[in-house]
Formats: sequence, C-alpha cells, structure tokens
Amino acid sequence: MAKELKDLTKRETDYSRWYNELVVKADLAEQADVRGCMVIKPYGYAIWEKIQQTLDGMFKETGVQNVYFPMLIPKSFLSKEAEHVEGFAKECAVVTHYRLRANESHDGVEVDPSAKLEEELIIRPTSETTIWNTYRKWIHSWRDLPLLCNQWCNVMRWEMRTRLFLRTSEFLWQEGHTAHATKEEAEKRAKQMLGVYADFVEKYMAMPVIQGVKSETERFAGALDTYTIEAMMQDGKALQSGTSHFLGQNFGKAFNVQFVDKDNKLDYAWATSWGVSTRLMGALIMTHSDDNGLVLPPHLAPIQVVIVPIFKGEEELKRLDEKFNVITKNLRAKGIRVKYDNADNKRPGFKFADYELKGVPVRLVMGGKDLANGTIELMRRDTLEKETLSAEGIEDYVEKLLEEIQQNIYQKAKERLESRIYPCDNYEEFKERIKDGGFFLCPWDGTVETEAKIKAETQATIRCVPFGVDQSNPGVDMVSGKPATCRVLIARSY
Amino acid sequence: MAKELKDLTKRETDYSRWYNELVVKADLAEQADVRGCMVIKPYGYAIWEKIQQTLDGMFKETGVQNVYFPMLIPKSFLSKEAEHVEGFAKECAVVTHYRLRANESHDGVEVDPSAKLEEELIIRPTSETTIWNTYRKWIHSWRDLPLLCNQWCNVMRWEMRTRLFLRTSEFLWQEGHTAHATKEEAEKRAKQMLGVYADFVEKYMAMPVIQGVKSETERFAGALDTYTIEAMMQDGKALQSGTSHFLGQNFGKAFNVQFVDKDNKLDYAWATSWGVSTRLMGALIMTHSDDNGLVLPPHLAPIQVVIVPIFKGEEELKRLDEKFNVITKNLRAKGIRVKYDNADNKRPGFKFADYELKGVPVRLVMGGKDLANGTIELMRRDTLEKETLSAEGIEDYVEKLLEEIQQNIYQKAKERLESRIYPCDNYEEFKERIKDGGFFLCPWDGTVETEAKIKAETQATIRCVPFGVDQSNPGVDMVSGKPATCRVLIARSY
Repeated sequence: MAKELKDLTKRETDYSRWYNELVVKADLAEQADVRGCMVIKPYGYAIWEKIQQTLDGMFKETGVQNVYFPMLIPKSFLSKEAEHVEGFAKECAVVTHYRLRANESHDGVEVDPSAKLEEELIIRPTSETTIWNTYRKWIHSWRDLPLLCNQWCNVMRWEMRTRLFLRTSEFLWQEGHTAHATKEEAEKRAKQMLGVYADFVEKYMAMPVIQGVKSETERFAGALDTYTIEAMMQDGKALQSGTSHFLGQNFGKAFNVQFVDKDNKLDYAWATSWGVSTRLMGALIMTHSDDNGLVLPPHLAPIQVVIVPIFKGEEELKRLDEKFNVITKNLRAKGIRVKYDNADNKRPGFKFADYELKGVPVRLVMGGKDLANGTIELMRRDTLEKETLSAEGIEDYVEKLLEEIQQNIYQKAKERLESRIYPCDNYEEFKERIKDGGFFLCPWDGTVETEAKIKAETQATIRCVPFGVDQSNPGVDMVSGKPATCRVLIARSY
Repeated sequence: MAKELKDLTKRETDYSRWYNELVVKADLAEQADVRGCMVIKPYGYAIWEKIQQTLDGMFKETGVQNVYFPMLIPKSFLSKEAEHVEGFAKECAVVTHYRLRANESHDGVEVDPSAKLEEELIIRPTSETTIWNTYRKWIHSWRDLPLLCNQWCNVMRWEMRTRLFLRTSEFLWQEGHTAHATKEEAEKRAKQMLGVYADFVEKYMAMPVIQGVKSETERFAGALDTYTIEAMMQDGKALQSGTSHFLGQNFGKAFNVQFVDKDNKLDYAWATSWGVSTRLMGALIMTHSDDNGLVLPPHLAPIQVVIVPIFKGEEELKRLDEKFNVITKNLRAKGIRVKYDNADNKRPGFKFADYELKGVPVRLVMGGKDLANGTIELMRRDTLEKETLSAEGIEDYVEKLLEEIQQNIYQKAKERLESRIYPCDNYEEFKERIKDGGFFLCPWDGTVETEAKIKAETQATIRCVPFGVDQSNPGVDMVSGKPATCRVLIARSY
C-alpha cells in the first residue's frame, strides 16, 4: 500500500489522471456498479457532511426552511415550461413499470408487462416543475410570501462521459426554490444566495471565486438570469461551483401560481432557484491538492490533527499513550478534530504516507527520545514543513496553525487565480494562450454567433460577465471587430 | 383558518381520519402529485431533521460512518439472494429508458424507444444487494473488519394503499450495513443497534417500546433474525418502529464476500442491516397527540416555546417587545428553541389555536396588565393547563418544565402501554378482546399454521417474541392446543 501511494501520477505529467487516481487512492469515492454513478466512501462522505452542515446553517440564517419533494416527476410536468423542457427533458432516467415477476425459468426476474404506468415518471434532474406545481396550492396571498424552501437530495441526469464528483449521472445536491411577491425581491434573493455560496466557498473551502452573470447561452433552462461562481483549478480551467437563478414569472405562469397582492390584484409569483452539488468535492480536491495527495482546508477536514506515536515495545507505547491522551483531550476541548493512531499493525512510514495522501492538515509525532526531551515533531500538510517543538503548549500552537493553514491555502489559490486572469483584446493571441489555461477578460459584442465561434475554435466558453469589472468602455470584440457590449470572462472549463 | 382548526375529527369518532387530517392541518406533510408519494413540509421536515441529527450522533458514537451508494440497482442483483428477491423484487419502480424526445406534434415529450437500457434498473427498495456487491471489493482480510456503514437516503416500494408517513411509495430512511469477521460479533451488533433505536425512541420521542425478535414469517427477506421495537398507538394497535437484522452469511455468500481470518483461512463475512424511516413521524404523531392537535416531545419540537404578546397599539407592543426580547435571549442562551410571534396580521386567538395544533410544548403570553403586574401567563401543551407566574425567573421555570413535559408524556404513554398488555391463553377470549386493541401475550406452538390462522381470523399478527419475558413455562398454544414453545406478543398493527 505504501508503495501504491507513491504511484500517484504527478500533476505535471497528467493532471486529469492525477485527479482520477487521487479520488480513489484517498478513499473518497469510486465507480459504482451502475454506469456513471458513484459510491461515496466514508472519508469522502465525511467531507461532504461538513459542507452540507455548514451551508445548511448559512441558508437557515437567511430564513430558508428545508422540505422534501418526491424524486419522481410525471413526464408531462417537464413540458410545461417551454425552455425548461429543452434543457432537462432529454437525458433522464425514465420509470415505465412498477413491478417485476419471476421469469419463466425461475432463475431471475423480469419486468411484468402488465404493470406499465399510464404516464411515465422521470427521476428528477432538478425539481422546479414538481415544486411549482405544489406551490400553486401553498400560495394564495402576498401573506404567504416569500416562500423560502430548500431540499438536500439526489438527482439524476443521464451523462455520457462521467468523472467522479465532477460529472456523474446521479449526484447529491441541495436545491433552493423561493417564491416572491415582487421582481425586485426575487432578484435580490438570487443574488443573496450567490453571495452565500461565494462566502462559504471562500471561508470554508478556501477557494477564491469570480462572481458574475451567465450569458444567455449558458443560462439555466427557464431562467432570466443565472448568477455563477467560477473557480480556477490548478490547470487554469474554470469550474462552475454554484449557480443561482432568477426565474422571473416563468414557472409561476407555467404552473399558474397566482396570488392576491397588497392592492388586491392577482399576479404571478416570482421565482428563484439555486444549487450546489457534490461537484464541490471535485473543486475542493483539484484546487489545493498536490503530488503527495489531498490537501484539505482545516475548516472542512474530517481529521484536522493526526497523532502518531513511534515506539519500541509496550512499555514505551504506554508512556506515549499517557502523554498523547492528555494532548488529544486538550485539543478536543478546543473543538479540534483529532485522531490518535497508535495501531500496531501498520508501520509509522505507512501511516505518514496515508495521512499525507488523505490531506490531514497537521501531524504530530513523538518517540521515546521526544518523551525524554519534552519535544514533539509537527508537520503541516500544506507546505510539508516539519519542525520540532516543545510539547508544552502545543495545543495553542496547533490551534493557531490550523487557522494559518486555512489562510495560507486560500492565499495560494487566490494568488494563482489573480496571476492568471489576463485582459486580452486579440483573438490570435487568445487562441494561442488559452491552450495553457487561465481566465481571459475579453471584449464581446454580445452575439450568440461570436460566442459559438469561440467555443468551436478553442473549446473555451464565456464563463460569465464578472461583477466588479469596469464596463464603461468595453472596447472592440476581439472576434468580430464590432463594438463590444461588455468584457466577459472566457476559459476552458470542467 | 381558526375555524378550520376546530374541525379536526375527534380520535374517538374516527382515529384513522383524525390522524390523516392532523398530518395535513398541522402542516407536516401532504399527498404529492405522484401517486403514493408525499411532500414533507417545512414544519414536518424540521422534526425529521431533529430525529436524523440525534440518531446520526448516536450511530457515530458506536463507530458507524456515513456513506452514499447509488439509488439504482441492476435488476439481476435482486435475484442473487434467494429469499431477498421474494421480499423485494415485486412492487418496485423500474427504469427501462434513459432518454425522452419531442413528440410528433411537438407539444410534449415521449420516451425515446432507441434509448432502452440493456438491463433494467430498479430504484432501491433497500440496498443490501448493491452494498454487498461493493463490499466484495473492500473486504479482503480480518483487518478490514468490522465495516460499519450507514446511509441516509430515499427508497421506493410501490405500495398500493398508502398513508402519509406510515406507508408511502417513496420514503426517507437510514440503512445501516455492517460486515463482521464472526457470527458472534454480527449478532451483537444487530442487538446493539436495536438498543440504540429503543434508547432514542424512549428518550427523544418519549415512546416506550417492546423489544423482541420476529417470528420466521415476519422476518426481513434474507435475515436469520429480525429484531424489532414495537410501539403502541392510542388505538391499541402496534406500530413497528425500527428493525435490526442479523443476516448471517447470506449476503456474504450471495455476493462472494470472503476474507482471510486471523488463522489465515478464508471465510464469508457476516452481516447485519438496520433501519428506521419517516414512519417514525407517524408513530410520534399517533402516540402523543390529542383532539386539539399535535403534542410534541420537547426534545424533538422545532419550536419548544412560543411567545405571544397581546397588545393594543404600537406603544404597548414596543414595551412588550422589550420585555420579551430579554426573555427570548435568556431562553436561547439555555439552548431552548424559541419563537417570538409579534406579527400583527393575526389575532392572538388564531395564534393560540395554531400553536396548539402544531404541538408547541410551552406558550408564554403577556399583555399590558401583566406588564404592570410583572406577571406572565404560561400554558403547557401536554395538559393544556394555564398558570400565571411572576415574569422574574421564568426562564429557569420553563427550562425545568420542558423536561417535566418530556417525562410526563413518556409516562402517560408508558402507563397506556403497560395497562394494555394482556396475558391471554384463551383463543375465544382473544378474538373478542382484540377488537378493542391492545397487546396480547399468548402461548404459541411455533408453527406457521397457527400464526396464519390467527392472522386470517383476527387480522392480528405475531409482533415479536418479547425480550425479558419469562419463557420457562410457556403453557399451551391457545389455538392448536399443542404445547407452546414460547409466549409471543400479538396485536393488530399499522
């Protein structure tokens, strides 16, 4: 196994392969027996749980409540919103029957043809349709608004080419669905939730992101505006990490959700929806990890500190146990997640490699000599630096160090992002440089044709019109030569 | 709406209807647009979240880790364990296609016949098969054991007659799946998890339960032993509230999960599985609630204390707000979940009825007169008793009262259970008395025939062979007259 760990492909050699291997070797997830689906293993799920719990608390602080809607959607619902059906009614899992029976040879089961559904059911690819069909029953007056619901669930989109966490047929996510009395309020909510995502991703995942609004082509099917946070991976490609949609009255009208407003007039409800998924796991892994394995931000690491004693014989182990039990207890009292690994069936070298691979932020080691000297060896995963410290007061040191590591990996990612955003007005230069990755800030004439041309010729897409960029003088479109309407962020993406 | 609240059917009039109405009126859940499925509304989901969080912590304390396995299972997996297929491969949702296309008239979508799956996929009714097919890759040596995994997810069983929470086609649950090196360890784990369930249900849900082991007929499909907790509803019927299965080596053999034991010999892994579901919500509602609505145990109530000011004019409201803000803050500092409802678009009478219906354990009310007198009115939901107290020190009083209410509703349910367990040796008497509900402790000859006869003639079933009952002299079977092998608990059930 320790040998196996070293076999991790280097990022430089093959970034994509490095990622695929790392997910499996670090015990995060693996391919399932069902095509395109994944099994999330305990270590991977523990990270997802931290993401989930933290975000859930942040949603609730804004007044959002959790609900649960059925996973099956009647086929006809999908066609009710004209654009939505184009986007989501294609590759999806269709339930056509509700019973199996023993086959003729009685060695297996087969579909019972008499148990055919009158109307086929779709496993939800997203739940706007089924939720808005229910909102019609919940919303009658402006007093029922705003309605702020969210659900944590599984969804299914039949993907042809899948990659663990980044693109799987089934994935886990949260989907928020809100209804409002006014356009302004809905727009504000859509932006607010994007802010929550950006905040979470930066503070907990240590990932800096670019916030912006999608072009029409890249919008969610049925949205008037799609807001996005875009993160940069180490290969310079973009990863869309969360989106929040202002849906206007499209779903209100499609599902006839009307309410009496304060002036006693009937109006259709205004909608938003917003989601992040297990895709965040992919972003987390790709942003910080290195050739030795995962690098996890302390705020999300299931194990923040691992403690390994090095001992000869039971007597020495006993003395180290005593010492470490105190340190473990003190660290836990500070709310730090500690694992004390004194198992005697694995060599220290194996343990070191394994915890490095798993991205545990801090490792503490003590041997017989340290015991005599009152010292302890500390390694931080982000820089792989080791130092020997006095065991006295190590708990305070570790507590501060965890925050420092969190900040350090964020800074590193932020510097990378900032150093690879290039203003670019020349299409020839763009075509050459995009091969090496990076985000390009380019003048765009606002047409679908130009957008399509860039994509066809370079595989790069308009990620967003970024917020906070001076758009007063966007210049000339680098492709068409026509006056640009704005500067957009263009990149290849996952 | 306040009128509507009063319309709740009385338990005495129609217990079943009372339940159905209560679930909807208290805003817990409602029928979904998909047959047999439910929408869990914010208030209902908030209770489920408390159940989930508490149980999850209890599982983790025993070493269990969370994972996620795909919701789709290849049809062929179901036939691998002979008994399991009988139990679960019948009424289930079958995915046969993976794509829709626009229909000819372009006004809707239809299944694309060219996108037919080679092998149909089943939406999981339970996940033993898919999990054990993966465990084969995870388990090689005794060092890999025990493997203690759990997942919180949705499952689907195509039910013909459904009732909100009690029996729905899709429901939420947790399913634990453990693998062990020895029979003893697996049996111990199955019993341990039953103990966790019993503990949780009694301490948090305030529901006393009977623990025991199922008869062969009532066992989980594929289990060697099924342990159960059985609760008694107010109508004297049993509700199976959680089960834990000792699966022997059945799945280990069916999916060829072998490991090298400490003596270097190959053996099949031993298995358990255990689960509780949103059915617990039904049990919770039916155990404690009354003709005025829900009665929630404080340990699980999303709102433990509601505070309602009664005011004339803004000036008075302002003074009440000031007073209540302090009380709210103090209560929250004690970890108590408080809602301060000073909304002015609903009358106090409406609020009172609504919070009663929703089962909020404690209500505090203050008006202008109270403000002058330094008093506060308190109502406890379990007894509906009101008292006027000094506002000074109300926080400590409420804190103690919440514990008292928790204990009180548990005691009430316990006394009901104990007073309605009847030892019974006479089948004629049994047939007469079972009509009024209750649990009957009867001698049984251990045969399937007797069990079937009782069920056919009385709709009652053997719930379990209860633990802790003296079985040294079970007597004579009340139906067949043959020597009994044990005393069993018989009841009608949900």
